[in-house]
Amino acid sequence: MALSEFRLIQRFFAHTGACRTDVRLGVGDDCAVLTIPTGKELVVSIDTLVEGVHFLKGSDPERLGHKSLAVNLSDLAAMGAEPAWATLALTLPAVDEDWLEAFCRGFSRLATAHNVQLIGGDTTCGPLNISIQAHGFVSAGTALRRDGAQPGDLIYVTGRLGDAGLALHAAGKMALPASVQSRLDLPTPRLEEGQALAGLAHAAIDISDGLVSDLGHICDASGVGATLYVEDLPCSQAVRDYIHANSDWSLPLSAGDDYELCITIPPEKQAEAERLAMSFECGLTPIGRIKASAGICCLAADGQAVQPISSGYEHFSS
Amino acid sequence: MALSEFRLIQRFFAHTGACRTDVRLGVGDDCAVLTIPTGKELVVSIDTLVEGVHFLKGSDPERLGHKSLAVNLSDLAAMGAEPAWATLALTLPAVDEDWLEAFCRGFSRLATAHNVQLIGGDTTCGPLNISIQAHGFVSAGTALRRDGAQPGDLIYVTGRLGDAGLALHAAGKMALPASVQSRLDLPTPRLEEGQALAGLAHAAIDISDGLVSDLGHICDASGVGATLYVEDLPCSQAVRDYIHANSDWSLPLSAGDDYELCITIPPEKQAEAERLAMSFECGLTPIGRIKASAGICCLAADGQAVQPISSGYEHFSS
Repeated sequence: MALSEFRLIQRFFAHTGACRTDVRLGVGDDCAVLTIPTGKELVVSIDTLVEGVHFLKGSDPERLGHKSLAVNLSDLAAMGAEPAWATLALTLPAVDEDWLEAFCRGFSRLATAHNVQLIGGDTTCGPLNISIQAHGFVSAGTALRRDGAQPGDLIYVTGRLGDAGLALHAAGKMALPASVQSRLDLPTPRLEEGQALAGLAHAAIDISDGLVSDLGHICDASGVGATLYVEDLPCSQAVRDYIHANSDWSLPLSAGDDYELCITIPPEKQAEAERLAMSFECGLTPIGRIKASAGICCLAADGQAVQPISSGYEHFSS
Repeated sequence: MALSEFRLIQRFFAHTGACRTDVRLGVGDDCAVLTIPTGKELVVSIDTLVEGVHFLKGSDPERLGHKSLAVNLSDLAAMGAEPAWATLALTLPAVDEDWLEAFCRGFSRLATAHNVQLIGGDTTCGPLNISIQAHGFVSAGTALRRDGAQPGDLIYVTGRLGDAGLALHAAGKMALPASVQSRLDLPTPRLEEGQALAGLAHAAIDISDGLVSDLGHICDASGVGATLYVEDLPCSQAVRDYIHANSDWSLPLSAGDDYELCITIPPEKQAEAERLAMSFECGLTPIGRIKASAGICCLAADGQAVQPISSGYEHFSS
């Protein structure tokens, strides 16, 4: 007999992730009941991964469990928020206990590492679809938004750009270092980095659709533009090799899925930000500057404009 | 050119539902930012509707917009919670602006009626899948749970049972009064009723999978059983006709989708509950009693046991 929906939820999801004292009631009732610390605001993000669109059929379920939570935690990171709880809506074509166990293992390991508790879930039958909502806190009034960038701000990114895009591009066609492949399958949400910079930054976003596209959201929301210096973009050796072999800056400029943070910081906070960043394992690299006029201009060291060949990934775009 | 994902979200979802002062930042950034009133706990539910499982291909999108929010608000009602915000993860096979407009119309009308604001959304491309999360508040410590029922409690239900099941059963095969059909397509979340009874009830659940199945969750969680008097079940004339023509109590006992509340109330609160219920448009009907021994026993007026023919709906069950 197949597991019923109810036992499925209980068995796989009842004890996933951290065990938090602010969860009055977790998985297993009509709703979860939660308490918010005094002086904090609640921060909520939602993201869906669809088979065949965001990941290939047959993808490793443990990595999928990690990634589907990671992309949501990355949104919290971009607000400078401390993560707390997640809910999971999982649509599955059939019950596959091995798949579920592996998915929960990947989800739970990342959740526990960031003190996130799974507080609710819904399992339904249908084409594979994973929708996760993450909840976190910020001190009242301190959330990092997209609309605060100002002309003169320095633009920084965490970590490295282009590895995930290279892994996607190379899929099955060429061998890559594990450190590059894992950036596509097991992205790291930059939570500590987002929280550390929350008091200093004017604006932030996580890079899910590509640097130019996501920085474009900051520029649109803030009514500004940006200049990027492509030689300053932090890239792995494998991405550098690709850029030079193909004379193509698309990987760091417009490939998505890296889940690094792009942050704008006013010049008077530069020294403080860079001092803080000395404790970031992933690093923090200045890559350009916000300008008053609209548009994003990518420049090479010789002052020539660089055009990324493809633009950021968008569902439904023609 | 098809609408890009971003403009889709902005255009259709930016101003859906109520406009609340506790929303610091709504649709359009990485996360929403929200404030919780002092002394309140946060209550969260998540539910997914899948095409071909929870609704038929080609279902009216406006009704679908209503229903997909209603089933979540019904979970909040079952906790005695006051609703506040919702997020929407919508997976669509293609952009269909007419469909989206109608869906948002249905969603927004119900949301506005209950002072719910849409605070975040994610649109992705794939087989139609609608996942909604609803957020609300309860005064600290007052949430209605499944695990509080005690022997001797009276069991009540709001509204009528079996109409949604009859509409599903009749689909295309026989004509039904609009008042019966609309109970399947446009369920009413019993929010005011749940909030009114929160201080009196020992336990509550919403009936999504069928009375016996959902009351069974209360019994399992509370370590009790129940006796139901089938002649007392509140039913429309159409459902009564079906029961008598087929000698089959399945519609009110085990058909799902009615989204009424099943509530247990201690005898000493009976008078107060029934006085409160005089203001409920949908009514509140006593249908049985909680007992100490496990199991749910359904009795006819002559004391004979009644067996529902089919048990509650479960995804994945064999």
